[in-house]
Amino acid sequence: MSDRAEPFVIDVDTGIDDALALLYACAHEEAQILGVSTVVGNVPLAAATRNTRAVLRLAGRADVAVWPGAPTALSISVRDASEIHGKTGLGHAVLPEPEEQAGALHAVDSIIAAARAHAGRLILCATGPLTNIALALMREPELPRLVKRFVIMGGAYAEPGNVTPAAEFNIWHDPEAARIVFRSFGGVGAAPVIAIGLDVTRKTIIDEGDLAAIASRVAGKQHASALTRFLEDASRFYFERMEKTYGRRIFTMHDPLALAVALDPTLVETRRAAVDVETSGRLTTGATIVDWRGQWGRLANAEVAVAVDAERFRRLFFEAMDRLAEGAGAT
Amino acid sequence: MSDRAEPFVIDVDTGIDDALALLYACAHEEAQILGVSTVVGNVPLAAATRNTRAVLRLAGRADVAVWPGAPTALSISVRDASEIHGKTGLGHAVLPEPEEQAGALHAVDSIIAAARAHAGRLILCATGPLTNIALALMREPELPRLVKRFVIMGGAYAEPGNVTPAAEFNIWHDPEAARIVFRSFGGVGAAPVIAIGLDVTRKTIIDEGDLAAIASRVAGKQHASALTRFLEDASRFYFERMEKTYGRRIFTMHDPLALAVALDPTLVETRRAAVDVETSGRLTTGATIVDWRGQWGRLANAEVAVAVDAERFRRLFFEAMDRLAEGAGAT
Amino acid sequence: MSDRAEPFVIDVDTGIDDALALLYACAHEEAQILGVSTVVGNVPLAAATRNTRAVLRLAGRADVAVWPGAPTALSISVRDASEIHGKTGLGHAVLPEPEEQAGALHAVDSIIAAARAHAGRLILCATGPLTNIALALMREPELPRLVKRFVIMGGAYAEPGNVTPAAEFNIWHDPEAARIVFRSFGGVGAAPVIAIGLDVTRKTIIDEGDLAAIASRVAGKQHASALTRFLEDASRFYFERMEKTYGRRIFTMHDPLALAVALDPTLVETRRAAVDVETSGRLTTGATIVDWRGQWGRLANAEVAVAVDAERFRRLFFEAMDRLAEGAGAT
Amino acid sequence: MSDRAEPFVIDVDTGIDDALALLYACAHEEAQILGVSTVVGNVPLAAATRNTRAVLRLAGRADVAVWPGAPTALSISVRDASEIHGKTGLGHAVLPEPEEQAGALHAVDSIIAAARAHAGRLILCATGPLTNIALALMREPELPRLVKRFVIMGGAYAEPGNVTPAAEFNIWHDPEAARIVFRSFGGVGAAPVIAIGLDVTRKTIIDEGDLAAIASRVAGKQHASALTRFLEDASRFYFERMEKTYGRRIFTMHDPLALAVALDPTLVETRRAAVDVETSGRLTTGATIVDWRGQWGRLANAEVAVAVDAERFRRLFFEAMDRLAEGAGAT
Repeated sequence: MSDRAEPFVIDVDTGIDDALALLYACAHEEAQILGVSTVVGNVPLAAATRNTRAVLRLAGRADVAVWPGAPTALSISVRDASEIHGKTGLGHAVLPEPEEQAGALHAVDSIIAAARAHAGRLILCATGPLTNIALALMREPELPRLVKRFVIMGGAYAEPGNVTPAAEFNIWHDPEAARIVFRSFGGVGAAPVIAIGLDVTRKTIIDEGDLAAIASRVAGKQHASALTRFLEDASRFYFERMEKTYGRRIFTMHDPLALAVALDPTLVETRRAAVDVETSGRLTTGATIVDWRGQWGRLANAEVAVAVDAERFRRLFFEAMDRLAEGAGAT
Repeated sequence: MSDRAEPFVIDVDTGIDDALALLYACAHEEAQILGVSTVVGNVPLAAATRNTRAVLRLAGRADVAVWPGAPTALSISVRDASEIHGKTGLGHAVLPEPEEQAGALHAVDSIIAAARAHAGRLILCATGPLTNIALALMREPELPRLVKRFVIMGGAYAEPGNVTPAAEFNIWHDPEAARIVFRSFGGVGAAPVIAIGLDVTRKTIIDEGDLAAIASRVAGKQHASALTRFLEDASRFYFERMEKTYGRRIFTMHDPLALAVALDPTLVETRRAAVDVETSGRLTTGATIVDWRGQWGRLANAEVAVAVDAERFRRLFFEAMDRLAEGAGAT
Repeated sequence: MSDRAEPFVIDVDTGIDDALALLYACAHEEAQILGVSTVVGNVPLAAATRNTRAVLRLAGRADVAVWPGAPTALSISVRDASEIHGKTGLGHAVLPEPEEQAGALHAVDSIIAAARAHAGRLILCATGPLTNIALALMREPELPRLVKRFVIMGGAYAEPGNVTPAAEFNIWHDPEAARIVFRSFGGVGAAPVIAIGLDVTRKTIIDEGDLAAIASRVAGKQHASALTRFLEDASRFYFERMEKTYGRRIFTMHDPLALAVALDPTLVETRRAAVDVETSGRLTTGATIVDWRGQWGRLANAEVAVAVDAERFRRLFFEAMDRLAEGAGAT
Repeated sequence: MSDRAEPFVIDVDTGIDDALALLYACAHEEAQILGVSTVVGNVPLAAATRNTRAVLRLAGRADVAVWPGAPTALSISVRDASEIHGKTGLGHAVLPEPEEQAGALHAVDSIIAAARAHAGRLILCATGPLTNIALALMREPELPRLVKRFVIMGGAYAEPGNVTPAAEFNIWHDPEAARIVFRSFGGVGAAPVIAIGLDVTRKTIIDEGDLAAIASRVAGKQHASALTRFLEDASRFYFERMEKTYGRRIFTMHDPLALAVALDPTLVETRRAAVDVETSGRLTTGATIVDWRGQWGRLANAEVAVAVDAERFRRLFFEAMDRLAEGAGAT
């Protein structure tokens, strides 16, 4: 582990792009992954937990703690995203079943403990609904003053949503939790929410040519075969779905981008603003509303990503896959 | 009146930019203005009616019928826009008090009568809240099949709102009415709503230099003096307000652009989509939600303006002022 | 027509109990029925209009004007009540098809005209959704100062609703209209809403024994046969439905009670209070909320019926049927 | 401790009536109080915790564990109830400041631990907002299958609310939490919510005569003086407030009744029904909606108290005060 390593906690609802985010994290020595907490979202909690363990094993990091969290949203929940991520949550990919870990700590306790143990240094990145983070805030209101950086994949700020015309999936799946999170972060002495929304993630797409390029780069390396097969099997399901809906075989790197920003915030340009979440609209529940013009008269609580260096991110992702194929995660 | 003249009804809540829209209309012979209906919005109904009469007189068109409509919104209304348009609704401008016209017809009856009398030919342009149009639809559900073209100034489709972060004033002032309008137009055989929202109106701004240019163009013409003074007095109030809020002395041509599009739809580029109005959100009431990706599975009911030829519009506006100064309206 | 006759307008969505209310009205000489306006509700507007004409003819009052009104609710409407009133709206009853009356006036204009013509004397009774009344108020805000008495069948004030646990059908079918009505009535110099809700109508039920009693009372009278058959055929459908749902063959006299109170307010005991309508609840849309304890700090706008002299009402209804069988309506 | 003693956890936001509920509990040997958890509501969390400790000490039970819980509601909270309970939450009463207990366990963990340790036997009684219970359910969804009985003071089922016309304070203060609680309890094999709402608590009032009667009964007993003074000082504030609002010097025994029912459910008559909480109404947020007629088609999740043996409860309360004055709590 590098001396520069920063303590990381990742909160996931492991579907396909969370898996890629985890792989990306495992390829970075500078991230000291204290644990990965899981939450209901793309898939049920048990599947999110199982997928998380399987992906960590694939990355050679079966040693990382996995902390199961909330099995239901605070909000009235409607549906998961299995039409996007497949029945298991990992598309067509089949990974070895991970062993059940007895006595796992709860996500909420673990997040709070990590934040206290690494006060002022912890980087927290959430790529699923914000249920665990909201519950942690209800337990430890000081959390925003304990973390160094808090990055979420969530929201649609000028772009249309992906689950409804107004809402992005992670926020829409638990808008009450998201509201608690946005109202809690960003105060005096507290970290803001660094919000990686569809506005920037939609600019970071990969296609089959990119997967082929990765396969060709890593060919012959020690772990290339399992990694390549996983990337292809997982993303193929997503490609099929996107082709059916939008006529293009593409994969949007929502969660990997959030993880990459957690490691390197300079990948995106952000604007400070007050953000809140609609929880009671007939058409707009789950919408992230951002007050660019100060009409609410509230303090800013978020850094909203408005532009991304997509080319650099793509390069970083390719390089991360190289390192994984060489067995980086296993060190 | 030119042979090419098209029958027009304009529905207004005459504040400053409605006034400019009326002036623009009066300068165009090809618009046969059947009447101007008034509605509560920027100002109370009585002020909207008085301002409308005064502006028509300024334009040499005191002959045009003015039809008072709804004095209150269908929705729970919150506030008017007098901080933007001044106490009278016309900024610092003082126009001669128009004579009260006894026995004026009601806006709703007049709109319906005009649509029936000119079935398939009427152009309807609404630059205020949609209360009158909604009430007309409750009386005559065939209205969308009777008009040739229906243009509104209203909504914010990708842009933030102007009265809240999510809502534009005209829609926000009576979201229930707007919902009735959007759900009624756009069916089989019916006109869509041509929606001129902040996305395009914010690109059509004029400043004090433009006013000076107009003054210099029209100098010496018969009606130049009254017109120029009105433009300056009315817009000065708006400039002051914008300077205070945004630090720029500019005037956004919301309503004149809608009127110009009603006369010449090629000024904007539009996209067809389903639009609906949020009526029950905590943060989003009055937001116009547009379903660009077909997630609702509804038929398109609107042509949403996404781009504008701002330069051509500016030229058209200047030319209209020229003609007014020459007494065009009076013909 | 008696000298004591009071000018009446009745607004209906004629299903079974509206029909009985109309019969009740026609049996009372002291009600000078200026016209009956119709509105969508239990059944579509066209059916409400046709049923109204047919019932007036049955009562010997084919001369009464019928004024069609709103074909849709202001609110997002969900469903009608055909499961309660049958496909035609009159249960199993089959009445001769009335002739279409050309050039019928619109409900809204007619209500306003009647109120102006009989200022301070008109009794207005609404037994359907309040769409027409709301539209009339948008046209003539003085309406509450023009009518002598305004009685509605609508709302559930301490009782559970009938269409949802929180809402009564007439209010639920157009809560936005109901809100407009409640906010408009009851000011200084204005009539309050006399609200006949489920709290009292559920105490005025009749059963098959009552129908048999009516049949036996009227036997041999001139119009007995058609009247008796209608009462039996219409109510039998309702009995079947109630038996299925609640195990009792009963008929609740919602609308006839409201009409009877319009004629004789002493039938109910009322309490003054501020009433408002929930328009945006997930569970409570259409609920009538009454502020018995002054928590809102608003002026009272309603007289809410809290008790009824059910025995006297029943006697009045029986006597009305006697008179109809004798041909009272035809005078 | 009696052999019959049942394990109890009480969740409170200690204002005046929570204090009386705690005194009542301490007077009952058959309640083995495992601990008292505190929550924001009538007063801020710190005050609720301090008041709880002070009241337990007054009752001779300073040994009982106090577990601080949620300092904020899940919902957007609006205001506390200090106008009812006074600045400290205990009216005019001044109790010795309790010592701060270092390292107190968190309410949520403690509730879950108690439920697991006494699976099938624990009695849980909540007299404040349901924030802690909702958080416990998010952590341990099995809670409703672990407790023997769950009684809340909360809701208004046929009665008007006390904080708004539609809502009772405890539910209104955190409607999202209440919704989570109602949706979680009552399933197969799970305890229902025993809901003690205003419908019954408003029938259990005491007045100054009752306080005098208590004082006279306990006179001369060992702890009579401190107890009597507390009862008088605490309730006097409430009396003053009620007199100002309703003109009567009375005290409603909301929380003591819930606690008494937790000890002896036969004090109330209940009806099983499905209950849900309105979280998004303009007028009705925090209303408890009960589906008496099965219109939702959901399983019953609650036993709603519809009648109370107020006389027996009063007697029990007097007897409890007798025992406290004798030092019962201290055993």
